Amino acid sequence: MPVTNPFIESKLKTADEIALLLPREVTIGASGFTPAGYPKVIPKAFAKRIESESSKTFSINLYAGASTGEELDGVLAKTGALRLRIPYQSNSYLRNLINTGKTDFIDMHLSHVVKYIEHGLLPEIDVAIVEAIDVSSDGKIYLTTSSGMSATYLKAAKEIYIELTDIHPIELKGYHDIYLPDHHSKGLAIPIHNVEDRVGLPYIQVPLEKIKGIVRTSVPDAAVEFKAPDSDCLQIAEHVLSFLQHEIKKGRIPKEYLPFQNGVGNIANAVLGSMAKDSSFHEIQMYTEVLQDSVFDLIDAGKLTVASTSALTFSQKGLKRFHENIGEWKSKFIIRPQEISNHPEVIRRLGLIAMNTALEVDIYGNVNSTHVMGTSMMNGIGGSGDFTRNSHLSIFMTPSLAKKGDISAIVPFVSHVDHNEHSTMIIVTEQGLADLRACPPKKRAELIIQKCAHPSYRPLLMEYFEDAVQNSPGKHSPHILSKAFSFHERFIATGSMKPRA
Amino acid sequence: MPVTNPFIESKLKTADEIALLLPREVTIGASGFTPAGYPKVIPKAFAKRIESESSKTFSINLYAGASTGEELDGVLAKTGALRLRIPYQSNSYLRNLINTGKTDFIDMHLSHVVKYIEHGLLPEIDVAIVEAIDVSSDGKIYLTTSSGMSATYLKAAKEIYIELTDIHPIELKGYHDIYLPDHHSKGLAIPIHNVEDRVGLPYIQVPLEKIKGIVRTSVPDAAVEFKAPDSDCLQIAEHVLSFLQHEIKKGRIPKEYLPFQNGVGNIANAVLGSMAKDSSFHEIQMYTEVLQDSVFDLIDAGKLTVASTSALTFSQKGLKRFHENIGEWKSKFIIRPQEISNHPEVIRRLGLIAMNTALEVDIYGNVNSTHVMGTSMMNGIGGSGDFTRNSHLSIFMTPSLAKKGDISAIVPFVSHVDHNEHSTMIIVTEQGLADLRACPPKKRAELIIQKCAHPSYRPLLMEYFEDAVQNSPGKHSPHILSKAFSFHERFIATGSMKPRA
Repeated sequence: MPVTNPFIESKLKTADEIALLLPREVTIGASGFTPAGYPKVIPKAFAKRIESESSKTFSINLYAGASTGEELDGVLAKTGALRLRIPYQSNSYLRNLINTGKTDFIDMHLSHVVKYIEHGLLPEIDVAIVEAIDVSSDGKIYLTTSSGMSATYLKAAKEIYIELTDIHPIELKGYHDIYLPDHHSKGLAIPIHNVEDRVGLPYIQVPLEKIKGIVRTSVPDAAVEFKAPDSDCLQIAEHVLSFLQHEIKKGRIPKEYLPFQNGVGNIANAVLGSMAKDSSFHEIQMYTEVLQDSVFDLIDAGKLTVASTSALTFSQKGLKRFHENIGEWKSKFIIRPQEISNHPEVIRRLGLIAMNTALEVDIYGNVNSTHVMGTSMMNGIGGSGDFTRNSHLSIFMTPSLAKKGDISAIVPFVSHVDHNEHSTMIIVTEQGLADLRACPPKKRAELIIQKCAHPSYRPLLMEYFEDAVQNSPGKHSPHILSKAFSFHERFIATGSMKPRA
Repeated sequence: MPVTNPFIESKLKTADEIALLLPREVTIGASGFTPAGYPKVIPKAFAKRIESESSKTFSINLYAGASTGEELDGVLAKTGALRLRIPYQSNSYLRNLINTGKTDFIDMHLSHVVKYIEHGLLPEIDVAIVEAIDVSSDGKIYLTTSSGMSATYLKAAKEIYIELTDIHPIELKGYHDIYLPDHHSKGLAIPIHNVEDRVGLPYIQVPLEKIKGIVRTSVPDAAVEFKAPDSDCLQIAEHVLSFLQHEIKKGRIPKEYLPFQNGVGNIANAVLGSMAKDSSFHEIQMYTEVLQDSVFDLIDAGKLTVASTSALTFSQKGLKRFHENIGEWKSKFIIRPQEISNHPEVIRRLGLIAMNTALEVDIYGNVNSTHVMGTSMMNGIGGSGDFTRNSHLSIFMTPSLAKKGDISAIVPFVSHVDHNEHSTMIIVTEQGLADLRACPPKKRAELIIQKCAHPSYRPLLMEYFEDAVQNSPGKHSPHILSKAFSFHERFIATGSMKPRA
């Protein structure tokens, strides 16, 4: 039985009808955070309309929570009318537009977006398009599998369109905890003192008159498929787990642990999967921005106490499991706006253990999370800066090699800095783990080269470092600037960071 | 009348006697944050002892709050026995040791130090040496002009030595608010909701038996002399003030302002001085780590409501004024541990306007605050990362030129990144102000080159940027890595970033 009420019935339209109502120059604030809970049929219909008219007469700015799926980012990117995208993306077609200079992209800390919107620093939002599982007759909108930026975009938009989906059981109502702090109210601490604290409402209230159309849909979120972790991922997980146990022995992590944040992807999943199997881990809490299938491993092992997130990004199989348990698991999951999932105040207070993926790391511990060879955007910084800078522990993980060995993840000088040596603490590759805390620069360099670099690049890295120690003008953080990017320059010129034999 | 009581009398020793009690291999946790409230006579006597014996048989690790004065950093550096210094410094002799590789220096976010000490990540503290204005018979220590790390070092140290100074009126008691959060207590928000909130105690309680000696002193803090602001500083201040008024008009700063944090130095002082004179500024609050003489300008103008700091770093003249008003001003100043003055949770909650000095800025807005030509340490990151990352607004200021024009503060690629393009918001030089918020990379480059770079470097910077836009492999953040450090390489080779004619 699809949800209904007289208000919904009065607003029902087809996606094509709604597409015709959208302005030619339009700034869209969309629901969605990773491929979870984003609108699908209206963007597709809008793209169809643009293609049938002339794309040159259209201009789209697209804001979402983070990345979204092909049905939003992909189809709009392909119209050729997408001018600006914030604050994170991962669609290959869109990425190509960004890296060929055709679409502007503003890569933002996810905890900055609400304020930037509220303060009018970005083009004003004309239209909010959100996926919902229910809309009440008095304007309460119940979101689906992500919270992201929806509350803020719904507030800022002049007109609201809703994709009312029946793909999820109605019991999804109640998973969300919508709370946004006022920005200039001094004296208000965010009242979250435990991962499980619910401090807001399960819906977003909007003025009825702003809702201009509702379309019924049954299109699922783009399924994320998880590969079984490869040996590199498993080895990284092993290093992380034994390090965490070492920290507990040292009394730096309490026996009942601290809440975990973990980034998206295979490495992060391998770590959670290994925790599920390891008998020394129990009673795990997550305070993170995305939950993936790996959370089921923790549930199966009886170890997950509670998980706070901004999105549930499951595989098809994972979603089925979630649906089957949707009533019971309401006490386990909380879906929060990204302003709160990524909020520095809460992150510092809860004392998270942050685990994120690095693209490359330099010998002094600076981390590049975003720019391939310093100039091309991969996905974006996402929440990694929010978590790294304010967590109790900040761990960066990467395989030591990429492109079949032609790229070393450890380089003399990263080609872009997203997290600097003052904030990064632990670097892990399948080779080993370097604990950089309380190490002066040259000690960090030795640790990273010896513990993390792939053996095939160690001699080259040591050669650079020793040259720098000998010949650098300053000996605090020795560098030879003319050779600092030599690995990258070689890759750009020859396709490999390795010198020709 | 010097303070006294039977306990003090029982512990009185000369500095030379105390110097003889210090271990040859010693880790010292000292009071002091900038040249304010650091021990002076014991370090001097210890240095004398080391010189009279053999310096090779001594090994000193020195921890303080931030930088200190010549009588601590200078004299110990000159013994040749200083092995490690954390977390910030500004002494020229010590800097030289660091940059020639003779002394290790760990350059830390000041808000990280307490946890690193408590968690045993650094060599254990043997001895705490603190300056105090009073010690009660039951072990309450009343600090002088700074709080810094003293509470933590006193707790961690096995033995405590106190320099009991009579240089300040006893009314200095009550200025301090000593509060430190437990690191692993979930659920405890730091209860500061307004700049003026006092949440701790005016003293530090220590076990009596740890106090091994007290020496009476009358040596003042090293006086900081303030130059009248030059025209560059005044122009920077003018740009900042008109920007702040613009922000108020836009509703992004409330009319009653937000609390200001400002870094140390002439530019920061010029900004406060100009605010004092400008009739559109009134009711100023400061939540910062160091207060300097410029705060008197605000007081004279009747504009300072309250100022929270970790140190009072005044000139001789300023100190005299402070002493004359020490009773009355107790309601205006709060001296906090650096854990709290720099705490991300409080900074984000209060919504600070952070104003710090940059060493160099690149065309995409990355800021170097620490490393001269990428390799030599200037002073350290200090609190700039704590404030920048979590403030409402983050402003970086620098004159566009240094070394009589041989250095451009605006460069293609900074030689060290302390604050990255995701976190920096506003860049100001005497030339103008670039508002980088919500700008994609290429727009940032245009703004910074056109508004902030000195005209004598603009053509060179535009040439680099245009070359990069044309020839960079990726066009999101265009760079030509082989030329990214060309300005620095030229300076290292020829003494000027300008090409030879």
